[in-house]
Amino acid sequence: MTQAPLHPLDQALKLEPAGEHRYVGHTSQAYWNMIGPFGGATAAVMLQAALVHPERLGDPIALTVNFAGPIGEGDFEVEARPSRTNRSTQHWHLELRQNGEVTTTGSAVFAVRRQTWNSGEAVMPQVPAAESLPVMSGFAPVKWLGSYDIRAVRGAKPTTAPGTENPDSLSQFWIRDEPARTPDYASMAAWCDAFYPRIFLKRAGFVPAGTVSLTTYFHADAATLAAVGDSHVLGCAQARVFRQGFFDQSAEIWSASGELLATSHQIVYYKE
Amino acid sequence: MTQAPLHPLDQALKLEPAGEHRYVGHTSQAYWNMIGPFGGATAAVMLQAALVHPERLGDPIALTVNFAGPIGEGDFEVEARPSRTNRSTQHWHLELRQNGEVTTTGSAVFAVRRQTWNSGEAVMPQVPAAESLPVMSGFAPVKWLGSYDIRAVRGAKPTTAPGTENPDSLSQFWIRDEPARTPDYASMAAWCDAFYPRIFLKRAGFVPAGTVSLTTYFHADAATLAAVGDSHVLGCAQARVFRQGFFDQSAEIWSASGELLATSHQIVYYKE
Repeated sequence: MTQAPLHPLDQALKLEPAGEHRYVGHTSQAYWNMIGPFGGATAAVMLQAALVHPERLGDPIALTVNFAGPIGEGDFEVEARPSRTNRSTQHWHLELRQNGEVTTTGSAVFAVRRQTWNSGEAVMPQVPAAESLPVMSGFAPVKWLGSYDIRAVRGAKPTTAPGTENPDSLSQFWIRDEPARTPDYASMAAWCDAFYPRIFLKRAGFVPAGTVSLTTYFHADAATLAAVGDSHVLGCAQARVFRQGFFDQSAEIWSASGELLATSHQIVYYKE
Repeated sequence: MTQAPLHPLDQALKLEPAGEHRYVGHTSQAYWNMIGPFGGATAAVMLQAALVHPERLGDPIALTVNFAGPIGEGDFEVEARPSRTNRSTQHWHLELRQNGEVTTTGSAVFAVRRQTWNSGEAVMPQVPAAESLPVMSGFAPVKWLGSYDIRAVRGAKPTTAPGTENPDSLSQFWIRDEPARTPDYASMAAWCDAFYPRIFLKRAGFVPAGTVSLTTYFHADAATLAAVGDSHVLGCAQARVFRQGFFDQSAEIWSASGELLATSHQIVYYKE
């Protein structure tokens, strides 16, 4: 009997238990950015440590990841420690270390979802279907872009001449894993960081920039995620302000059927 | 010589050193909510522990606070531990404990701000001046509302009949501390949680609800904050989705002169 090879994301999410609340993982070439792992992959593997923890209660509601220092190629250790477990909610302390140094810190809140009165207030943008759009070709020499099938609606890449400025920093694109993979909380955590830095769009060119802190709220239960299957989801991201070396980004992830699966916010360092 | 009494917020922020990376504080009646402290005051005092820490580098950029369990009246301990200090950024682990139990966890990122190319993409809503609006009377029996001077532009309180629904959950109001106090990072952290739960507005009435996780990004340097002086700032808050017991909220805090001082996001538990 032969076994199907692991999806590259499942390979990147592989964690070996290494003592109480500790796991060892390994960086993935499929999710490599310029000088370290794609931040979304790091967020995903930190969430994964809580997802696979034997004391896990419920599903992720909130995830915060702080990018404190560089991660090099190779092994790393993730600590996922329940700070407090209540009847229906659970709080996690997350920390990623490499060679004894803290590179990434974070926290997560898990909860048991219940049936309640529901209401979607935000409205999904009207955009052409993913199937009607061409696959975006990578415009940056980073490997992780090849692990996604992205179909841009708007703000795909900086198009105006360098030195000029775009009136806004809004990107909208369809995205799925490449090869296709039914989403789960870890893959959605990664999608939420798949928008290239908003300042590239605003300034119409490359600017040294990196995410400092990323917070994602999950609005879908596991069944809703599973129902997405191989479909693309629509990601929308925009900045509100660029000031004194930092800009923000707020993002939404929509299912093709119009459900808001996640909202995500980050603050990003830039040098310009 | 007599000494002016401390402002109630400065009283609430008072921390006594209690060992390495540890401080003891005390809950404040001026910032009391229904059965515990106003979440904004808790966020502020956790940030304050990093602000007064002797190893502090730069100013706050990001703050995440996770509300894990109830805080009772009395003393509490705040741990503020630098997880990693780089040349111009610093990452903090924050934890509030009472009677040996973790009630609140969090993290903060501090940084040295630099002069860069800046751009405000979001635009301040056009609203009447604070001085032209009446002070909002408290509509909920909570003391902390008395510690703020709030002038509502829109969405002040649920106005439609109970059982009906509002088309949106947008609130806009001017706010300053009462008595007036020149803002700093701690008071701004508290303002960011001063919006009553969006579901009260959407559902036009009281619904059991509480913030689970709160993330604030600070976009102003200390001089910009100091220049606000006794003026009101404009707060705007809205939810995107209410689903399965949790809704989100995104908020903006604007100076009267049109600078975006902070953006803040939270996920809130509700029972309906």
